[in-house]
Formats: sequence, C-alpha cells, structure tokens
Amino acid sequence: MSHGVQHDETDPTDIGERMISPSPLLTLPATIAWKEDALYLLDQTRLPHECVVERVRTVEDVWRSIHELRVRGAPAIGVAGAYGLCVAMQPTREGSREAFYAALEQHAAYLDSARPTAVNLSWGLKRMTQTAQRSEAKNAEALYQVLVAEASKIHQEDQAICEGIGAHGLPLITPGSGILTHCNAGALATTGLGTATAPLYLAHQKGIAFRVFADETRPLLQGARLTAFELQQAGLDVTLITDGMAASMMAQGLVDVVIVGTDRVAANGDFANKIGTLGVAIAARYFNLPFYVACPSSTLDLQTACGADIVIEERRDSEVTQLGGRGIAPRNIKVRNPAFDVTPNELVTGFITERGIVRAPFGKNLGALFASEGDAP
Amino acid sequence: MSHGVQHDETDPTDIGERMISPSPLLTLPATIAWKEDALYLLDQTRLPHECVVERVRTVEDVWRSIHELRVRGAPAIGVAGAYGLCVAMQPTREGSREAFYAALEQHAAYLDSARPTAVNLSWGLKRMTQTAQRSEAKNAEALYQVLVAEASKIHQEDQAICEGIGAHGLPLITPGSGILTHCNAGALATTGLGTATAPLYLAHQKGIAFRVFADETRPLLQGARLTAFELQQAGLDVTLITDGMAASMMAQGLVDVVIVGTDRVAANGDFANKIGTLGVAIAARYFNLPFYVACPSSTLDLQTACGADIVIEERRDSEVTQLGGRGIAPRNIKVRNPAFDVTPNELVTGFITERGIVRAPFGKNLGALFASEGDAP
Repeated sequence: MSHGVQHDETDPTDIGERMISPSPLLTLPATIAWKEDALYLLDQTRLPHECVVERVRTVEDVWRSIHELRVRGAPAIGVAGAYGLCVAMQPTREGSREAFYAALEQHAAYLDSARPTAVNLSWGLKRMTQTAQRSEAKNAEALYQVLVAEASKIHQEDQAICEGIGAHGLPLITPGSGILTHCNAGALATTGLGTATAPLYLAHQKGIAFRVFADETRPLLQGARLTAFELQQAGLDVTLITDGMAASMMAQGLVDVVIVGTDRVAANGDFANKIGTLGVAIAARYFNLPFYVACPSSTLDLQTACGADIVIEERRDSEVTQLGGRGIAPRNIKVRNPAFDVTPNELVTGFITERGIVRAPFGKNLGALFASEGDAP
Repeated sequence: MSHGVQHDETDPTDIGERMISPSPLLTLPATIAWKEDALYLLDQTRLPHECVVERVRTVEDVWRSIHELRVRGAPAIGVAGAYGLCVAMQPTREGSREAFYAALEQHAAYLDSARPTAVNLSWGLKRMTQTAQRSEAKNAEALYQVLVAEASKIHQEDQAICEGIGAHGLPLITPGSGILTHCNAGALATTGLGTATAPLYLAHQKGIAFRVFADETRPLLQGARLTAFELQQAGLDVTLITDGMAASMMAQGLVDVVIVGTDRVAANGDFANKIGTLGVAIAARYFNLPFYVACPSSTLDLQTACGADIVIEERRDSEVTQLGGRGIAPRNIKVRNPAFDVTPNELVTGFITERGIVRAPFGKNLGALFASEGDAP
C-alpha cells in the first residue's frame, strides 16, 4: 500500500491540513473535509492502491462523486450531500433570497437523485433546506452561511454518533472473539470511527484481542478494498474472505458475532444494506449467532413501514461483468445487479444506535427511542 | 466470445475431429479427448475469452492441469486422471511387467495429490490400478492397452451417468420455474451433459421455458466464466449474479429449485462442494425451497462417515487478492481460501443420481442404492 497522498491541488500545506485524520485511532485521511468554502473528498474508488483527495467544485461533480461511490457509506453520504448543497449554492450567493430558495429546492432534488436507497442523503438534504427555510437571514449570502453552519453541525454530529455507537457496541467485543462484517460500515463510510467498526476500534484501543472477518463484498469489493484496508491500517487482526466463505467460517466456529451497517431501517426494523447482507443474516440465524446492525439515527426511516417499501437501486451490469475494465464474464450475458437487499427484522438481534442497543419488538422500541427527538427523520 | 478454437498443434483436420462436441445439445468442444495415444484438454482457465485445446504430454503436465483447474469438475477430473495415468505410463510401455507395476503405483499416487477433495480422482486412479493388477496381460505394452481401454470405459460411463442424472432430474424443471446453481457442475465439469446442468439441457431440449440463475462463484468465477457461458452458448435463459445475490433472488420469489453439484458425498449424506454452497443451502432452507445435489455415483464416498471427515483443500491467497494479475485487496492482507465447504445432510432435499433421486434418510438410502454395484467407490 502506498501511503503517499495524491491530490489535484498544488499547495502542500493546504493538503496536509485537510488530510488530518478524524481520530487518533485512524491512520487514513478524513473522508470529507470542508475548508475555506471548498469541499474535499477522499476518492474511495481508488483505494486501497491510491489515496487521492479531490476537490469537488460543482453540483454536478458532487452528484457524480456520490453516484459513482467516490464518497459512499450512508452516514458519509449524508454529510457529503449537506456540504454538496453548499457547493451547489455558491453561484447563487449574490442573488436574491427568492432566487436562492428556488435554486436550493432544485439542487436538493437533483442531489437526492444520486443514490435512491440511502435515506441519509435525502435526510441530510431535507434538514438543510428546512434550516434555510426557517432562517430569518436577510440575504442570499447570509442564507449560504446558515447552510454551511448546518452542514458543519451534521458533520460533527456524525462523528459523535460514531463514538456513541462504538461505546454501546463495545461490550459485544470480548477477548478471543471473532467478528464478521459485510461491506464497509467503517470509518470510510462516515466522517468518524465508522458505525459497525466503531466498537472494533474502541475494543482495539482497550487492548482486547479479537479477530475480524471481512467479506470482500462483490461486486464493488468494498469489504476487500475498504474494510480490510482500514482495519489493517489501524493495526487490527483482519482476515479477508470471499462472500461465499462467511457461512463456512461460521460452521468452523470462527465467528461469534456479526455486525453490519445499514442504509435504511424501516419502522418495523426491516433494513436495507449492501447486497449479500441477507445471506449473512440467514447464516447467522442458522448457526445461532447474534446479528447486530449498527444504526445511526439518520438511517432510521419511520416513514417507511417495512422492508417491502424500500426502493432498491439496480446498478449497471458492468459492475458484475467487469473488474478494472477487464471482462470476467461471457459477453452479452444477462445480469441482475441490485445494490442492496432487505433483511427482515426477525433475523436481527439488535440495532446498535448512538443511544443504546435496541432489541425486539423493534416497531415499538425503535420508535420509542427516537420519537423524542425533533430532528430525527 | 470468440468461437475460434486455438490449439498447440498444426494439423487442422486432427483438431477438427477431436473438437467434436459430446452431445448435439452442446456447442462447446469436448472437455477431454483421447486420440491416437494423445490426451487433449480444453483449458478452462482461459474460458470464456479463449477456447483453447492443449495436448498434455507428461505426467507432470497432467498433474499441473488438474491442480491449476485447467480441467476441473469432479467427474471430469476422474476421467482426466484415468487418461492421465495412461500418459504417465507411456515411457514404461516397453519395459518389464514389474517395472510397469512399480511405475503405475508411483504415478497414481503422484496424480492423486493434485486435488485432495474430489473423490473422483482417487476413485478413477484406484480403478485403473486395480484393473491393471487383475489383468493377465503378458507384457507392459499389453498392460498399457488394458489401461487405455479402462480409461475409455470410465469416459463412456461418465457420459451415460450425465444422461441418467438428466433424465431423473428432468421432472424438477417445470415451465416458468427459476433454477439457481452455484459454481460449475455443468458440461464443462464432465465429459457429457454435466451433472447439475443435465436436467436443464434436457428440459431446454423439450421446449420447457425456464430461467437459470448462475452464482458467479468467487474466487475463481466458475459460475460466471463456465456455467453462465455454457448455458448461454446452448441457448438457455441464464442470468449471472454475484454470490451475495442468491438470497435476494430467493426473497424476491425468483427461485423455485436449487441444484448444485458435489465433489464428495459422505456416507451420511453430508457433502462437499465449491465454497459458497453451504450459504446457498442455508438460504434455500430459510425460504423453504427444495435443494438438490446432482451426484454421480463416483462422488459417493462410503468410506467417509460424515462431512467432518472430509479434507478441505486450502488454496493460495492470490486467488482472493488478485484477479487477472491485478490486485483487488490491500497488500499483505491475511486471507482464508478454502476451496470447498461442507453442507450437512439436513439441508438436502435429495441427491439426483443416475439411478434415481435419493431422499432421506440418506445414510440408509445412499448405501442401499449403491451397495449392489461392485465398482462403486
């Protein structure tokens, strides 16, 4: 792995500063940075081979970065969408309030279309537009500053939520245990310690010895490229497996707990996560292993009654048929490529949230935990 | 896909003849051909991009072809091992009977080490050595001819077994149904119609409309490169999915039956198959779907009491961390790479054999079906 950070800017001081890791536990640069009205994203499609931070200059670039998974992970997408809306509004800073509001609605709707399944994107954008609408700021420039402040607040909250999930999940990581995770609900999926990985980082910090199995997570290999990478970089004992090996590791008694992330949790506790999660949950049930979902409050969608109501993004065939531009399947082969699957609540042992672990009955307990908070989605 | 057949020989007539497909249902060349004391193998590591038939000239080449999966699939390995032993004995054709028998034992043991999990290899080699030992042939050349005749018999039996499995499995393929399979237990894994695929080819021939989902089967992508390819070439309706999508396809009601192959079936009905099969079996059980194992008699190993006694081959890390020579994982990452997993008999609806479908209790019924046959393993 090359630790050298590449960039599209020429001022090394500037780069150095915005590359500061969000936590002393992590060695990688921040996934998202905002500095002097500029948005910087760590391009995760180039990990683990290259560590490249790019400045995102237009609303179209923000949309593309989210759509092409350069920034990915439900919590990080929420933060990227919020800052992205600030980038989008920069050309309108000097116009009228009316023009500002009109552009705001338009850009928010456009950015929201970049990834349909992750609730955090629409949640973050909605929070931004509502904040602007409630604001009594006198002009467009002042409204813009309100947006930047709100995005920064969402950013800080995300880091605090990761810490909270880590603290509540920490007791699940016992000495000598094996933890299996799927896809990347790691630091790279957030702006902090990650969600599913936060308990792992905290347990490692406490000197607890345990091992992690990371599913590679085809088609886009977020488990291999991102989870295995970030845990390895932070010094954790991580073993990479293909998705089809998860059940075998469980059968061999090597897994004690499964922890995954989520992109959207319905009101009844059904949840969407990266394709392959359902199979892992079913296998965990077969082997009587606890199956936990790290769930920042921003992924809870009380407006969606159950899993059947979650829209699943179908992505392009070439993600399955090609790897690095090289064909790995027959030409013109028919392909399915849903980015997510829905796991029914009955397979979930608990949701690890920043306020504690929520157990069944989920319909009642998820609602109770978050009903008190006005800004929960 | 290039249909052009490449080769390492110069006589096009000869190539043309040995490329004849084993069945009018198939459009691909034979996986294994024996012609005028020469063994030819279709190099499956180069599919689907290149269709290359190679002559295998030495026992070391045979070992390497089996070890590196140029010829693969339990039934095909049995046939390749038998012919491979003939290749191995060619330098000893003019020696003494004693020298012949000594070399035979040595070469059989060597070839047997190429793949430890597939029972067919040791089964085929044992049958060959026993046939030679029982023979009253007067000299080494005559013993060699006995071996060639026995290998040819194993070859023809393999084709007949595929037909038998196809006939018994055919009623499982109903109009409009969805069939899911994992890895390649196809024509390319045998010298005939395949095992898991034989019912599919016969149903297609009968004009039954159905769809097949082929798991890509990481790490070596036999499902994408071989199963999706051979079914597509034969005109079947096949959809390629990543391994993690199988449970999601089942949840969507798109799968009615699962049919997989096997490399070794223990006496109690536990069976080994390509890594990932266990997860598919568990998911099928969760969704109450029938789960069948296509099982030629040569994969039944009554000497192995149960799945825990099956030796699982662990293969090299680079199969997981690289694809086509390109790194797809962090450097120096720890990897597990078991080639197979073991599925417990309780998850099996039935074994589709050439003599009929065997149902539980498997310990009793598998033994009963094959006990009558002297040459069953």
